[in-house]
Amino acid sequence: MKLYTFPAAPSPRRVHLFMAEKGLELDQQIIDLRAGEHLETDDFVHHPQRTVPALKLDNGQWLTECSAICRFLEEYQPDPRLLGNTITERALIADCDHWIEMHGLLAVMEAFRNYARGMQDRALPGPRPVAQIAELAERGRRRYGWFLQDLNQKLIRHAYAAGDNFSVADITAFVTIDFARSAIKMDIPAEAGHVLDWFERMRRRRAFQQVLT
Amino acid sequence: MKLYTFPAAPSPRRVHLFMAEKGLELDQQIIDLRAGEHLETDDFVHHPQRTVPALKLDNGQWLTECSAICRFLEEYQPDPRLLGNTITERALIADCDHWIEMHGLLAVMEAFRNYARGMQDRALPGPRPVAQIAELAERGRRRYGWFLQDLNQKLIRHAYAAGDNFSVADITAFVTIDFARSAIKMDIPAEAGHVLDWFERMRRRRAFQQVLT
Repeated sequence: MKLYTFPAAPSPRRVHLFMAEKGLELDQQIIDLRAGEHLETDDFVHHPQRTVPALKLDNGQWLTECSAICRFLEEYQPDPRLLGNTITERALIADCDHWIEMHGLLAVMEAFRNYARGMQDRALPGPRPVAQIAELAERGRRRYGWFLQDLNQKLIRHAYAAGDNFSVADITAFVTIDFARSAIKMDIPAEAGHVLDWFERMRRRRAFQQVLT
Repeated sequence: MKLYTFPAAPSPRRVHLFMAEKGLELDQQIIDLRAGEHLETDDFVHHPQRTVPALKLDNGQWLTECSAICRFLEEYQPDPRLLGNTITERALIADCDHWIEMHGLLAVMEAFRNYARGMQDRALPGPRPVAQIAELAERGRRRYGWFLQDLNQKLIRHAYAAGDNFSVADITAFVTIDFARSAIKMDIPAEAGHVLDWFERMRRRRAFQQVLT
């Protein structure tokens, strides 16, 4: 199998952190998003969305959603488990990860893609041109603020995003918050003290340091 | 465990179709969304999003995302498997299901919630008021049209949304398309002939008939 990726972008970074936590290395091909390589390469003829990360399996089929790529890699190399150890833990992690994606990451993406000058007519991923909506950028920022409030509430009750153990949900939340800082200039506010503490703890993890430097 | 639900709404319907395919019955409590019961009930004090479906587990914890509820039920009662039989099939189904949710269901929801008179200040689920964005409703309709084109391409190659076997991805796609017909008055166009054929096949499944009537 082969991973098509552009490590500096937030979605690929989710997969790279996941792999680093597992100590897993894959054959990779860099697709330079800034140069528009994803829109031109012939490799993506059977991947019409033309997004990265994309994992081409040995049978020639493609995985193009981060959550599915991580799910595949969890089964490919189970240890250490990042999607949970028991039926209840697996469900709670899937629940939290999906919640972070829909309410956190999507909000930041809406704020970024509907505002950044370099994203004109690219307000959604994929090859079809989509115009920016200024009100949606504004809504994305407001919504991201709510997400940080809600995540802070979760982190009052337990040490990691989805419970007492580190999981893929921490990776998704970290990538969301890190991207928000650089792309839409929204930092963690002082009121979200539990998020601040957790973010520093995540950043000090060995796997995170490998990927982020 | 107990399922909090309102079967007529699209998200709960995903879980009800999933349960019907498995022949699974759960203790249920109806939360009347039209009467605003989700915003008032004391049951949701530990479920701040106040959305349905929501599954309260025996240990008191909540699952509030459809995909996580289905994942829990798949492990709770594995047969018949709706999330795949092999590592590759499970990954391809997760991939397709997530794609349908992000590009199909989300598009229809954006079109509906940003347009319908009954959704004013409820453009996003949850208790916080969110104003409608007319441009987003319009974008949602365009995007849903693209989704149908892309789904049609998939159904040229295989009989079900995620491959050769029925799966949760067919449920998510069916609920999306059925909701689009009633809520935003967008039917399957004649050009999407494979989607039309597939939709009729799905509607004739016994489990679907149980839930839809």
